[in-house]
Amino acid sequence: MSLLVVGSLALDIIETPFATIEQALGGSATFISLAASYFSPDKLGVVGVVGDDFPERAWDIFRTRSIDTSGIEVVKGGKTFSWHGKYHYDMNNRDTIATNLNVFADFKPRIPEHFRSPDFLVLGNIQPDLQREVIEQLTRRPRLVLLDTMNFWITGARESLERTLKLSNALVVNDSEARLLVDSPSLIVCGRKLQEMLASEKPRIVVIKKGEHGSLLFYNEHIFSAPAYPLEEIFDPTGAGDTFMGGFIGYMARRGEINYDIVKRAMIYGTVLASFCCGKFSTEGIEDLTMQRIYDRFLAIHVLSSFDLEESELTDE
Amino acid sequence: MSLLVVGSLALDIIETPFATIEQALGGSATFISLAASYFSPDKLGVVGVVGDDFPERAWDIFRTRSIDTSGIEVVKGGKTFSWHGKYHYDMNNRDTIATNLNVFADFKPRIPEHFRSPDFLVLGNIQPDLQREVIEQLTRRPRLVLLDTMNFWITGARESLERTLKLSNALVVNDSEARLLVDSPSLIVCGRKLQEMLASEKPRIVVIKKGEHGSLLFYNEHIFSAPAYPLEEIFDPTGAGDTFMGGFIGYMARRGEINYDIVKRAMIYGTVLASFCCGKFSTEGIEDLTMQRIYDRFLAIHVLSSFDLEESELTDE
Repeated sequence: MSLLVVGSLALDIIETPFATIEQALGGSATFISLAASYFSPDKLGVVGVVGDDFPERAWDIFRTRSIDTSGIEVVKGGKTFSWHGKYHYDMNNRDTIATNLNVFADFKPRIPEHFRSPDFLVLGNIQPDLQREVIEQLTRRPRLVLLDTMNFWITGARESLERTLKLSNALVVNDSEARLLVDSPSLIVCGRKLQEMLASEKPRIVVIKKGEHGSLLFYNEHIFSAPAYPLEEIFDPTGAGDTFMGGFIGYMARRGEINYDIVKRAMIYGTVLASFCCGKFSTEGIEDLTMQRIYDRFLAIHVLSSFDLEESELTDE
Repeated sequence: MSLLVVGSLALDIIETPFATIEQALGGSATFISLAASYFSPDKLGVVGVVGDDFPERAWDIFRTRSIDTSGIEVVKGGKTFSWHGKYHYDMNNRDTIATNLNVFADFKPRIPEHFRSPDFLVLGNIQPDLQREVIEQLTRRPRLVLLDTMNFWITGARESLERTLKLSNALVVNDSEARLLVDSPSLIVCGRKLQEMLASEKPRIVVIKKGEHGSLLFYNEHIFSAPAYPLEEIFDPTGAGDTFMGGFIGYMARRGEINYDIVKRAMIYGTVLASFCCGKFSTEGIEDLTMQRIYDRFLAIHVLSSFDLEESELTDE
C-alpha cells in the first residue's frame, strides 16, 4: 500500500534542561515519514518545502529510509522553516521562543504525478485550506485520510478546518486541542463529537493523545485506551505526536486493511515509535531502529496493560 | 479476611457546576469502607470520630453495608468534621472553601479490642503520627498496611511521614503528591523511588492515581497501567480516590492472598468503584451497587484496554 505524507520540514532550535541543539531536523512530515518507513509501505513519499540550506545529512536520512523526496520543493536562496522551542524542567510544558516560517510561508503543496492516487494520506498540521488543496489534487479517494491540526487553526480558521474534517476519516489531536474543538471537559464526549465532524462513511477514527498518559481511540462505536510506554527519562519530546501518527498510519498501510483490531495495534505501534522519539534528540531516536526493537516494545506494552479475567468467584451475597 | 479502616468521617458541603449539597456524607473512612464492603471481607470495621450531629441516615448506610462502627467515637456536643469544596467547570480542579476540623482536631484513634489483629489495614489520610499510633496498637502485623497521605503532610510532616512509610507495604497517592514526595517529573521514577521508601520486605506496592487518565501500579519489579473507566459525565469526584482504595483493598481482602495478578485485578476493581462514586453525589453512587454491576464494569475495562498480539508478520527486511 502506498502512503503520502504532506507537512512541514524544519531545522529547529531545541532547548531542554539537558542541552540545546540548533539545526535539529524536524517538521511534521519528517517525523511522520521516518516513523512510517519502518512498516515498509510499498511507496512512501513526502510533499513539503525546504530552502537550499536543507543539509545533505537530512537528505541522507530520508534516502536511507527509502523515502521518496521528489515531492519536496527546494526554494533556491530560501531558508527552511524553523521553530525555536524551550522545554520546562518537567518536559511536559514548553514555550515557543520563535517561529520563522521562511519558505513555508508561501508553501503550496504540489503533488507529483506518481503520488496522486495514494492508498493512505496523512495531512500534517498545515493551514486547513492547503490540506483541502492536497485532497483536490488526488485522482481517487484514498482508503484513509488522516488529519492533524493545532490550536492556531482551531481558533483562527475554524470554518475551513470543519470543511477539511468532512473530507477526512481520521483525526489525531491532543487533549487540549480536542477540548478546544468541542468545548467539553470530558474527553469521552470530545471523542464522540469529533467523530461526528468527520466524513459520514465509516470508519470514523479519532485519536486523542494525552502525552505521558497514553491515548484514546474512538473507532466507530468502540473506545480503546492505550497506555504510554513507561519512560524514565525524556530527552526531547519534539515530534513525538507526529511520530505517533507515522507509526499509526505506517502499520495500517502495511496491513492494507482497516478494522478495529488492526487500528488498536496501530495505536500501540504509534506509541512505541513515539517512545523511541522521546528518548533522543530530534530525529535521532527514530533514524536507525529495527523491527525487533519495535516489536519488543510492542510486547512490553502488552504486558504493561494486560490483566486476566478471574474465575467468576464474585457473586451477589 | 478482616479489614480495618482508619480515617475521617465528615459532613461536607460540595459545590459543583450542577448543584450544591450540604451535609453530604463524606470522609476517607466512609468512602473506603463502603467501597470495600462489596467484597464482603469476613469482618470490616471503621475507626474514626464524629460529633453527635452525625445523622441517623449515615449510621444506617454503614449498617446496611454490614460495616462494624463500634470503633467510631461519638463526641457528645461535638460537631463532625466538615470540608467545603467547590469544583471548577472541568471537574478536574477544585478549591477548598473551608475546612472545619471540629471533633477531628483532637482525634486519637483507639482500636477496639476485637480489631487489633486485622489481616488488612488501611490508614486513610490523617496525621502520620496518628497513623503510626494505629500500627502500634495492633497485636500482630497485618498482611498488608495500605497508606494514604496528602500534600499537607508531605510538606509539613515529612519526617514523620517517612517513618510511617517504613512501616507500610503499600502507598496510594495521586500524581501531584508523588511528584512532591520524590521531586522528579517522571512518574516512573517517582513510583520506583516511592517503593524504596516503604518497608523493605516484599510486596512493595505503590499506586499513582491520575484521575481521568487512570492509574499506575508498581508491584515489586513490575509496572501495570490501568485505564480510567470512560465516563461521559462526572457529577461529583469527591471521595473517588478513597473509593478506589476501598475497592483495591476490599478485593485483596476477599482473595486473602497477595500476588501480582490479584493486585492488578484489585486496581481494576478500585477503578470500577471510583467510577460509580463519580457518577452521583457524595456516597450515593456506592450505597447500593450489586456485584453484577461491578463485574460488568470490570469486564468493560478489560475490553477497553485489550488488544491482540498479531501473528508475527513483522520481521526485519
